[in-house]
Amino acid sequence: MNILLIGLGNVAHGLLTILQEKSDELSKRYGFTPSIVGVATRSRGTIYHPEGIPISELLNITRKGDFREIENVRYDLDVLSLIQQPDVQVIIETSPSNFETGQPALDYCYAALNACKHVVTVNKGPLVVDYAGLQQRANEVGCGFYFEGTVMSGTPSLRLALEALRGAKITRVRGILNGTTNYILTQMENGMTYGDALSLAQDQGYAEADPTDDVEGWDAAGKLAILAAALFGTKLKISDMKVSGINGITSTNVQSAQQADERWKLIAEATPVSASVRLMRLPVSDPLSGVSGAVNAVTYTTDLMGDVTLIGAGAGRVPTGFAILSDLLAIHQRFKS
Amino acid sequence: MNILLIGLGNVAHGLLTILQEKSDELSKRYGFTPSIVGVATRSRGTIYHPEGIPISELLNITRKGDFREIENVRYDLDVLSLIQQPDVQVIIETSPSNFETGQPALDYCYAALNACKHVVTVNKGPLVVDYAGLQQRANEVGCGFYFEGTVMSGTPSLRLALEALRGAKITRVRGILNGTTNYILTQMENGMTYGDALSLAQDQGYAEADPTDDVEGWDAAGKLAILAAALFGTKLKISDMKVSGINGITSTNVQSAQQADERWKLIAEATPVSASVRLMRLPVSDPLSGVSGAVNAVTYTTDLMGDVTLIGAGAGRVPTGFAILSDLLAIHQRFKS
Repeated sequence: MNILLIGLGNVAHGLLTILQEKSDELSKRYGFTPSIVGVATRSRGTIYHPEGIPISELLNITRKGDFREIENVRYDLDVLSLIQQPDVQVIIETSPSNFETGQPALDYCYAALNACKHVVTVNKGPLVVDYAGLQQRANEVGCGFYFEGTVMSGTPSLRLALEALRGAKITRVRGILNGTTNYILTQMENGMTYGDALSLAQDQGYAEADPTDDVEGWDAAGKLAILAAALFGTKLKISDMKVSGINGITSTNVQSAQQADERWKLIAEATPVSASVRLMRLPVSDPLSGVSGAVNAVTYTTDLMGDVTLIGAGAGRVPTGFAILSDLLAIHQRFKS
Repeated sequence: MNILLIGLGNVAHGLLTILQEKSDELSKRYGFTPSIVGVATRSRGTIYHPEGIPISELLNITRKGDFREIENVRYDLDVLSLIQQPDVQVIIETSPSNFETGQPALDYCYAALNACKHVVTVNKGPLVVDYAGLQQRANEVGCGFYFEGTVMSGTPSLRLALEALRGAKITRVRGILNGTTNYILTQMENGMTYGDALSLAQDQGYAEADPTDDVEGWDAAGKLAILAAALFGTKLKISDMKVSGINGITSTNVQSAQQADERWKLIAEATPVSASVRLMRLPVSDPLSGVSGAVNAVTYTTDLMGDVTLIGAGAGRVPTGFAILSDLLAIHQRFKS
C-alpha cells in the first residue's frame, strides 16, 4: 500500500513509530506492507519517491528536521500534484483542524477521492464542514473514506457504532469527548481551583497555551458534529448547536455535586434531531460519571441493546497513530482483492 | 440465507422477534433476507421446510408450543440429518451450555463445519471444551464460525477485541462477565444482606433457582476461557483456572470497601499465561468499579491504546438475539460474493 502523508507532526510520528515497530507483525499477520511514498507539509515542502522513503529516515525529521536530509527524492511537487501521482493509493491527512473552512484539508480530500485514492483523516475540519459531501463522493468513486481518529483518537468509537453495532439502531449518543476538560474537572474534584487545574493541564501538555477550543466546548462540538453526521446523517453546523464549556464552573459547584453523589461532566449529546455540548451533573450510577482524568467515553443508546459504553484514550500521538493504522488495515482488508 | 435453528427457547424467541420486526430494514439496508428452513429441539423434535417456515408461525410455538401446529413441514429428520440438508447454509446453536462435554452442541458444530455450513453459537459449551479444534476446522473448510453472544451477549466484546482493535496487541483482559453476581453486589452496597440480595435476584429473574454456576464463578470462568482462547490462543480448561465466587462475601466486607472508596467486584482476568475469577476490591477510579446492576463490562489492556473498556448488557433474550443477528450479518457480508 503506497501512502502519501499530509502533515509530519506528532500524529505522523506516532503512526511512523508504530509502522516501524510492528512492521514484521503487520506483514505476517495481515499481509500488510505499507510504503510511504510521499510527505507533504505546509512549511517544509514535500518529498516524493515512488518506491518508498525509509520510515527510519522519516522519523529522524518528523516535527522539525529539514527535508533535504532525505536524499534521492523529488522535492518539486506540490501537494495536489503529489495526490495525483499514479503510485499514490492512500492519502493520510494529519494537518491541524480548521472548523470554519476545513481547508486546506478539504480540498486535499476531494482531490484524492476525485482521483480514486482512499482517504484516511484524523483532521476533523473537512468532516465538520462537509461530511455528507465527502462521504457521498467516496461512495460514488467506490473508495475508502475513514476517520476513526477524529473522535476519541484510536478508541474505536466509530467502528463500534458503524460496524460492531450494525443491525441495532442508535437513537442517542452521549459522550465525554474532550480529555482536557475532563482532566480539569477531575482535578477540581480532588480539591484544586479551576485556575490551578487549568495551569496543571497546560503543564502536563493536555491543554494548549490558548485553551479556548477545549474549555469552551468547541473541540467536543466538532467531534459531536462528526458523530451526528456519521450516525444520523444530520448536516449539523457547529454554529447551530448549543455549545457551552466548563469555564464557568466553580469549586463550590463541584463540591456540591460530590456531596449529592453526583459528578459534573462536559457532555456532548446528539439525537437525530438535536445536538448540544454542556456541563451536566450525572449520578454516579451513570457509567460516564466514573470516567476520570484525560480519558474519553461515549454511550450509544440503542433499540436492541440499551446503553453500550466505550471508555478509552481520547488523544495522544500513539493512540491517534493507532487510529490511522486501524483505518489502513480496514482499507487493506476491504480492497485487497 | 437459509438457517437451521437448534434450540427454540428464550434466545431463539429474541432472535425471531428481531428478524420479524427488522425484516424490511435488514433487507433494504444490508440486502439481508434470512429464511428459517429448520428448527431442532431436544424435547419437541424437529421441523423442516427448504423454502422456509414463516417467522410468525415460529414465534407462536417458541418455548412451549407443539411443532404439529406448523403444517406442511417435515417432522421426520433428526438433527444431524437436518444439518446435512443442502438447503441449510447456517446453523445457529442456542441450546443450554454443558461445560464438561460441550455436548450435544459440540457434535452439531463439527457436523456443520464438516458439511461446510457456517456456525453461529451462543452456547458456551462447545467453545469451553474445544475452541481451538472448532476454530481450526472452520479455518480449514473456509466457513464462518461466530460466537459473539457467548460473552456479554450482544455487547460486542469479541468484535471489539478481534476486529475494532486489530493492529493493537491485547496483553490482558479483565471483566465483570456475570450480571447476576454484579446485581447481588450492587444490592449489598445498597444495604441488603447477601441472602436477601440473592433472593431478590431470583425474584427478578437474574438468578436461577440453583444459583451455583453464577455465585461460585463458573459462568464467568466459562466466558473467560472463551476470551482467553480467542485472544491469546490459550487452551485453558476451567479446571485449571483459579475460580472463586461471591458466596463468601458479607455486608461488613462491602461496607468496609465503600468506606475506603473502593468496591468489591467479581473479576474475571486473563493474560496469555494466567486466568482467574475472584472477588477484588477496585478503587473507584477503575472504570469497572462503577459498573452497577445486572450489567457486564470488559477492559482490554493494549500496547498502543492503554486500557479500552466496554460496558453493556450481559444477558437477556433481545441482547443475545442481537448477538446472533450481528454474527449473521458478518457472515452475510463476508460470504455474499
